[in-house]
Amino acid sequence: MLEDKNTHRTDLSQLGEFGLIDLLTRDFPLHNPSSLKGIGDDAAVIDFGEEKAVVSTDLLIEGVHFNLAYMPLKHLGYKAIMVNLSDICAMNALPTQVTVSLAVSNRFPVEALQELYEGIRLACDIYKVDLVGGDTTSSTRGLILSVTALGKAPLEKIVYRNGAKENDLIVVTGDLGAAYMGLQILERENEVFKVNPNLQPDLEPYQYLIERQLKPEARKDIISLLEALEVRPTSMMDISDGLSSELLHICKQSHVGCRLMEDKIPLDPTLINVCEEFALSSTMVALSGGEDYELLMTIAPADYDKIKGNPNLTVIGYITDESLGCNLITRANEAIPLKARGWNAF
Amino acid sequence: MLEDKNTHRTDLSQLGEFGLIDLLTRDFPLHNPSSLKGIGDDAAVIDFGEEKAVVSTDLLIEGVHFNLAYMPLKHLGYKAIMVNLSDICAMNALPTQVTVSLAVSNRFPVEALQELYEGIRLACDIYKVDLVGGDTTSSTRGLILSVTALGKAPLEKIVYRNGAKENDLIVVTGDLGAAYMGLQILERENEVFKVNPNLQPDLEPYQYLIERQLKPEARKDIISLLEALEVRPTSMMDISDGLSSELLHICKQSHVGCRLMEDKIPLDPTLINVCEEFALSSTMVALSGGEDYELLMTIAPADYDKIKGNPNLTVIGYITDESLGCNLITRANEAIPLKARGWNAF
Repeated sequence: MLEDKNTHRTDLSQLGEFGLIDLLTRDFPLHNPSSLKGIGDDAAVIDFGEEKAVVSTDLLIEGVHFNLAYMPLKHLGYKAIMVNLSDICAMNALPTQVTVSLAVSNRFPVEALQELYEGIRLACDIYKVDLVGGDTTSSTRGLILSVTALGKAPLEKIVYRNGAKENDLIVVTGDLGAAYMGLQILERENEVFKVNPNLQPDLEPYQYLIERQLKPEARKDIISLLEALEVRPTSMMDISDGLSSELLHICKQSHVGCRLMEDKIPLDPTLINVCEEFALSSTMVALSGGEDYELLMTIAPADYDKIKGNPNLTVIGYITDESLGCNLITRANEAIPLKARGWNAF
Repeated sequence: MLEDKNTHRTDLSQLGEFGLIDLLTRDFPLHNPSSLKGIGDDAAVIDFGEEKAVVSTDLLIEGVHFNLAYMPLKHLGYKAIMVNLSDICAMNALPTQVTVSLAVSNRFPVEALQELYEGIRLACDIYKVDLVGGDTTSSTRGLILSVTALGKAPLEKIVYRNGAKENDLIVVTGDLGAAYMGLQILERENEVFKVNPNLQPDLEPYQYLIERQLKPEARKDIISLLEALEVRPTSMMDISDGLSSELLHICKQSHVGCRLMEDKIPLDPTLINVCEEFALSSTMVALSGGEDYELLMTIAPADYDKIKGNPNLTVIGYITDESLGCNLITRANEAIPLKARGWNAF
């Protein structure tokens, strides 16, 4: 659990709740002038002036969302922040503040929580968001993290899930499926480790996939890119559950259908190789994998010229009338109805 | 766990995450024009215009913060919201929105969660706050609730913990200690019930105390009262841990001392009787009890005439220079140093 097994362990009870909060949060400088009051009062105070506030929250439970056997605590802290910043970005807003609540059983020494907060601080530093509050308590079992993120945007820039229109292009950032395959590799190595703890796995060929699982990034850069390109998506959401599930959300909430082109889905070469090794369909992994935290959006056809050739943005299909349903167009040019998990051929 | 034991039980897996969210949150009308977008997108959108946003968060864990053996789920939902609204009120701000994240093990049927959300809805209705988001997930054990509340206030009205000045009066709302004694009674009856489930306890004499434990109210009314009286406290916080612990927070953060008068602490007559029955000091219960969610504030001496005789506000002491320390002045006129838990005579 701790990277250095010889590290000194301080029992949580030696510090008390307030001592622990002080220790964990003392190195969090405030980056945003809108953070009028941070940690240390009943509530944080935030000044959004003329901008609108955007708020998102996520709850992460040990044994459900993460396994500390292969998720180092620093990475967990970083990822917990990213998951929430990604939701803010998915509104076309800029993240500004986070609150972090933590419940831990007494099996965690203070040093473990400091590692967790190192990851949180790194995320706050890189993304220029302020930790402004939280709650710390004990749990009867395991580690529980609850993060709430706030962001801001002028009202006319905010993008919902329900604005996709017929003939809009479906666009995705980055590549898909890598985070899921990273998890498959970590789980496989964990099983191997249980059988023979002395076996040192060579994870070098899988580095990209593992990093996508352990250290995802929220696409804050895309919010700036869209502004620079003068593109306001008609709908947008982040890909946490998987491409097909998210695209179905957009279509349902926008009352439209879609045609998703299998051959356009962006895949990293490593992913294709490892899917072969695991005898999995890379398309299915990209459709159902989840946790990539890329952005899925629809844009008006008139905006195509603005995004054409941009390496960050890939057109993967288009929006149709609702009556035509939501379909994957395979490489064999067959239309298969999309399902929330993969498609019905599986 | 369910009030009506014959109620139909629907397994959580029948609904799926999104079905569950739909079911639980469909009856939450939005009360505030500032709630531009509620549940159903990556994040809620909130319009604070010229007012400042205030944000607070709390994490509640089964077996740590509540025991479902004597805490009905509807009450738990209500209380989880109150705990957070109380923090917003403690900033002299008005609560406007909440997010609720929920993790449950599969021992909870859908109907149990609906009961929980009935309490949440009741709290939202009475306090005119909007449920605007959340997260729903499974837990490996028990029920976990994470609530984040947002509120608003003009900057010049917001009250921190660090503004208490020498000679300020210490003021408390309502009466103290009742929630703690309510818990003692519920725990005693739970032990009796374990020994003999057929024994029907007569809880009538304890009704006030039990209600203070199971259904606390955030003092939103006091925020309006202070405005009507034209009083802006110099410092304020809510009493969740206990009077002495909270007063020590204010003194520490304001760099002042205090003299708290034992004979001025407001106690309900029921509390005094039940403390005798339990052979507990009612002063100690009021100082250390916690969970009353009353407001503790300091006001400038010049404001005394404005609050004099108001039944909601009791002067319980005054602020001194830091060098004089934090003391309880007993009925025998002795000064005893205040401790976070009771005082050092215990």
